[in-house]
Amino acid sequence: MLSFENDYSEGAHPALLRALAETSPIQQPGYGEDAFCQSAKEKIRAACESLDADVFFLVGGTQANQVIIDALLSGVEGVVSAVTGHVNCHEAGAIEYTGHKVIPLPQYAGKMRAADLDALLRDFYADPSHSHMAYPGAVYISHPTEYGTLYTLDELKALRAVCDAWKLPLFLDGARLGYGLMSDGSDVTLPDIARLCDVFYIGGTKVGALCGEAVVFPRHGAPARFDTHIKQHGAMLAKGRLLGVQFNALFTDGLYFSISRHAIEMAGVLKRGLLERGCRFFLDSPTNQQFVILDNGFMERLAAEARFSFWGPYDASHSVVRLATSWATAEAQVRAFLDIWDRLA
Amino acid sequence: MLSFENDYSEGAHPALLRALAETSPIQQPGYGEDAFCQSAKEKIRAACESLDADVFFLVGGTQANQVIIDALLSGVEGVVSAVTGHVNCHEAGAIEYTGHKVIPLPQYAGKMRAADLDALLRDFYADPSHSHMAYPGAVYISHPTEYGTLYTLDELKALRAVCDAWKLPLFLDGARLGYGLMSDGSDVTLPDIARLCDVFYIGGTKVGALCGEAVVFPRHGAPARFDTHIKQHGAMLAKGRLLGVQFNALFTDGLYFSISRHAIEMAGVLKRGLLERGCRFFLDSPTNQQFVILDNGFMERLAAEARFSFWGPYDASHSVVRLATSWATAEAQVRAFLDIWDRLA
Amino acid sequence: MLSFENDYSEGAHPALLRALAETSPIQQPGYGEDAFCQSAKEKIRAACESLDADVFFLVGGTQANQVIIDALLSGVEGVVSAVTGHVNCHEAGAIEYTGHKVIPLPQYAGKMRAADLDALLRDFYADPSHSHMAYPGAVYISHPTEYGTLYTLDELKALRAVCDAWKLPLFLDGARLGYGLMSDGSDVTLPDIARLCDVFYIGGTKVGALCGEAVVFPRHGAPARFDTHIKQHGAMLAKGRLLGVQFNALFTDGLYFSISRHAIEMAGVLKRGLLERGCRFFLDSPTNQQFVILDNGFMERLAAEARFSFWGPYDASHSVVRLATSWATAEAQVRAFLDIWDRLA
Amino acid sequence: MLSFENDYSEGAHPALLRALAETSPIQQPGYGEDAFCQSAKEKIRAACESLDADVFFLVGGTQANQVIIDALLSGVEGVVSAVTGHVNCHEAGAIEYTGHKVIPLPQYAGKMRAADLDALLRDFYADPSHSHMAYPGAVYISHPTEYGTLYTLDELKALRAVCDAWKLPLFLDGARLGYGLMSDGSDVTLPDIARLCDVFYIGGTKVGALCGEAVVFPRHGAPARFDTHIKQHGAMLAKGRLLGVQFNALFTDGLYFSISRHAIEMAGVLKRGLLERGCRFFLDSPTNQQFVILDNGFMERLAAEARFSFWGPYDASHSVVRLATSWATAEAQVRAFLDIWDRLA
Repeated sequence: MLSFENDYSEGAHPALLRALAETSPIQQPGYGEDAFCQSAKEKIRAACESLDADVFFLVGGTQANQVIIDALLSGVEGVVSAVTGHVNCHEAGAIEYTGHKVIPLPQYAGKMRAADLDALLRDFYADPSHSHMAYPGAVYISHPTEYGTLYTLDELKALRAVCDAWKLPLFLDGARLGYGLMSDGSDVTLPDIARLCDVFYIGGTKVGALCGEAVVFPRHGAPARFDTHIKQHGAMLAKGRLLGVQFNALFTDGLYFSISRHAIEMAGVLKRGLLERGCRFFLDSPTNQQFVILDNGFMERLAAEARFSFWGPYDASHSVVRLATSWATAEAQVRAFLDIWDRLA
Repeated sequence: MLSFENDYSEGAHPALLRALAETSPIQQPGYGEDAFCQSAKEKIRAACESLDADVFFLVGGTQANQVIIDALLSGVEGVVSAVTGHVNCHEAGAIEYTGHKVIPLPQYAGKMRAADLDALLRDFYADPSHSHMAYPGAVYISHPTEYGTLYTLDELKALRAVCDAWKLPLFLDGARLGYGLMSDGSDVTLPDIARLCDVFYIGGTKVGALCGEAVVFPRHGAPARFDTHIKQHGAMLAKGRLLGVQFNALFTDGLYFSISRHAIEMAGVLKRGLLERGCRFFLDSPTNQQFVILDNGFMERLAAEARFSFWGPYDASHSVVRLATSWATAEAQVRAFLDIWDRLA
Repeated sequence: MLSFENDYSEGAHPALLRALAETSPIQQPGYGEDAFCQSAKEKIRAACESLDADVFFLVGGTQANQVIIDALLSGVEGVVSAVTGHVNCHEAGAIEYTGHKVIPLPQYAGKMRAADLDALLRDFYADPSHSHMAYPGAVYISHPTEYGTLYTLDELKALRAVCDAWKLPLFLDGARLGYGLMSDGSDVTLPDIARLCDVFYIGGTKVGALCGEAVVFPRHGAPARFDTHIKQHGAMLAKGRLLGVQFNALFTDGLYFSISRHAIEMAGVLKRGLLERGCRFFLDSPTNQQFVILDNGFMERLAAEARFSFWGPYDASHSVVRLATSWATAEAQVRAFLDIWDRLA
Repeated sequence: MLSFENDYSEGAHPALLRALAETSPIQQPGYGEDAFCQSAKEKIRAACESLDADVFFLVGGTQANQVIIDALLSGVEGVVSAVTGHVNCHEAGAIEYTGHKVIPLPQYAGKMRAADLDALLRDFYADPSHSHMAYPGAVYISHPTEYGTLYTLDELKALRAVCDAWKLPLFLDGARLGYGLMSDGSDVTLPDIARLCDVFYIGGTKVGALCGEAVVFPRHGAPARFDTHIKQHGAMLAKGRLLGVQFNALFTDGLYFSISRHAIEMAGVLKRGLLERGCRFFLDSPTNQQFVILDNGFMERLAAEARFSFWGPYDASHSVVRLATSWATAEAQVRAFLDIWDRLA
């Protein structure tokens, strides 16, 4: 069945599958010491304009969030996140599992405000009992957010300024980073992110790879023994090449950016098509995730012919659903979906 | 350079790469709910003659050991392992990281003895202060062991009997299970293991896959909410199909077994060649890992022309090294290695 | 300086100190196996009208919360608490440190509403992605709350009913339980609590003891190997008698209740005195903690002559402060405080 | 019944109980901010000849070991201990519970050898796979050991030298420190320990206090936010004065040393009495714990009239038992025990 359920419904971009097949017979050392990982790291450093960055490859987003946050924090520290942050909601308590509190801040279309962060820190250190509380030890943001929204360059700079003032590392979860960077609504570049964040990752799983997230610590900023942290979390691949080969392909000839751009364009086709049909949007997302409000009856009829994600109730008779395009979405699929819509409407 | 360093030096068996490419465009649900995972699980259940088994796919061995052991144990329990067990040595404290002690027992060529296990438990409960100690809560064995050796069926039955007597789950780490099952030295079958163990995994990473371990809990024996344990450890793939497709291919037409058998045959060619050349073996391994004793000078010359693993010093002038064959080893590679040997000897 | 800063400003009630001195030369086994602990447990069971209760003694409140919650929950579960719950705010992330998320609910004068709890659980299990979330595994309430307020019997029954419906244990933090039970505003008895909760503790530290909390699991309800959980958390006293002797004295001749009642009466004198002086109250607390709103200038002058706790800003020119009476408060101290007030007002 | 079972069978030294009673009415701040703690810290700094030491008070030994080791180590580090170290045996996996491996070394009468420690570290860093292992991050020794034995000053210096060479903190568990310092067999002083260790504690629980261990980090060496670590482990007393008052009394007029000396003298009386009776000793302990070998039949008869600790089987017909004297042991009790012995022999 036609699916706009998420951006990981297909396998991988053909170029990556081809690279995996072609390189397969070549004997290489394990644990990320292979030549493909080295090559991919160089290409990523260049794309980030951060030639001294430490780059690591991890398998998935929750894993990356867990390993990075745990390595950033001391035992008595927690991580600050918008209340809707993925680490606070849909990772089965993975951060708490490693001993750290997620300290929630209000969200605005999925985003954290620098002023809220600053106020939290000011209140924390003003409270005479703060040594009886988990210390804010790092800041987690997602970009695009869980609602498909984007920080502006000014917003990122403001967060950076607060982090500087309070000496906190800023961590950006870029599970869907390509879709943010290639959005018409973005004024943020990859080098901007490398300049403003202490650590971020470039999502592969949702942008054309079978799996994989490229973790970047600009300015040789990796925590000590980060490779052992990876191993200890069971997150180190014996065949690190699986990730190296894929990211090497994604960062060859701008593939990561072109396939991301394609998803944005498909989201545009979908969005315009839905607007023309009078569909209401839950919020204005400039990326590949679109949140729309459907009448419950219509939603059920639609669900019988196409897959999408139920996001939550909107009111007594309406729901919010998410439609996601991806690098793999064909324009014909979008048209087919709109045809179904028309037929059912 | 020619490498016998390990059994994960190449990518994946061509049949798996082909299956990944062919299935790639097919849209499927995420998180292991895809049709490929379901198909692979059925085939694994059949191969285990355990139709009611709970089957899960994880990415790697340390991850599997960590998630399984953590889910098996209560907070005050530890896991019993031979002192050489992978979980006790080379997983960066991954078990302790999740809060559990590894309780060591003596090893005999990498194996644990049932009598030692029974004595440990008897002593533990005889000690009036045992409630001030970590409770033995599960038993971990590897098969083949870290030394390539195998438990006999009688040895496995004896461990099972002790586990039954003390009501402990028996967990078998089968990261190299194929190489054990297809060894001439094995009298243990996959259904035997499913009958005698509470949980085990069928290693894919070292037997032809890019990554992946198939975790089997016979008799619907999975701990409650095991999928959430997986998620919480950052071990759940968004594209679970990556593992499903590969295991589906491995368990089609006996591929897992035939490629495992090939590695055993290549180990045989290597072993016979080395024996003919008067090479001393550190121990008698019936599987794809061979441990030999080399003169240090010779070892260095050899290392300049072929890769292998340094295992440790043997005496002042000799070392133990490991040579591993795999599903990917060509007989020509073994011959080439022996030629190098002859030239250098 | 005269202090109403908290209810743990003095050492211990003289009867407890006397009992410690008198019993000191008597040789007893360690780790809570002593005769004093046994006697105290019997008296507590009788006071709770729960003769089959499992009773344990722990040293302090954060420790009790941590050990109990950790023992109640499986690895993938979190604990539900009002957002103002002590475990969510002022325990330095002690719950998260043991791997468990604190799942917050709205608070109403420090209390959780049964309807909110029910809605949380309904939403949780209705969410198709709930297996990617920390499971609600227990419910934490404090009584009196952090704001000195009390659950009514009907409110407790309503929470119990929700817990029954969803099969969740209900845990009541009674760090100040005596002050709740003896409040004129309470319709809840100790046997009510034993009947309605799965576990609770009777606070000693804040009610006359040097230290100590009596943890009660009615109906033989202690988690397996709870003593080992205690030991593992570093929470087991070699000289368990320190706690046994004190609780034995507290539950002899109703001392726990009479000294608690005294604190309530002193709070009444204080409250009436402040009301007569036109003092505004932040909320209406029926127990020994009183929260009042002070002009910032007046607050500073007062702070120079008497100790109290700053609770937070109220508006630009006012603050909320807490005044606590205790078992040790003399009426003369309350009068002296009111005299200072009059002099400064 | 007469008991030599351990050194915590009584309550507390009368001077401590008196101090607790006398200071009880004095209002003081909580959480160790009281005047008694401050006074006790000054006296301890003076006794250690370490005026810039950071001093904290914790409740018990397992708690102290857990909090200290967890605060010393990063997430990927373990602690090195003799295999018989308390942290490796009788703390219910408390160290592993906080995520850290205990890395065992051989023991010699309970002691670790500097040469073994150095060899461990050399081998660790020589192993090319050491980044896949838990890093040795601190060294734990007990003094007196679990067998009552003592490090010589030269042995301590040798351990210090290895720790310096590998930049590891040296942690000395002094749960019975007084009995070591006052032993005729000791050439180590408290200032020596403060000079040679990065952290140690002065045991109170087993040396006259109801509870309490004074943790000393010489040279302002406490880990950052150590008070929050204490709070997070549930180890912070609301009434910190309980520990401050006791340690203040113990370090007034040399009480800690004189009562420790008394226990040593009583151990001497016991030891000489047993030697005269031909009793065999399991090892030669110069402190208050004596380990003797008893015929099993005799042991059972003795156990019917006096308490002692069973330590383990010696051979088929003999056992090792521990007899402990303490600050509270009266010479008449030793004589009475020897009389029982004579009667039963």
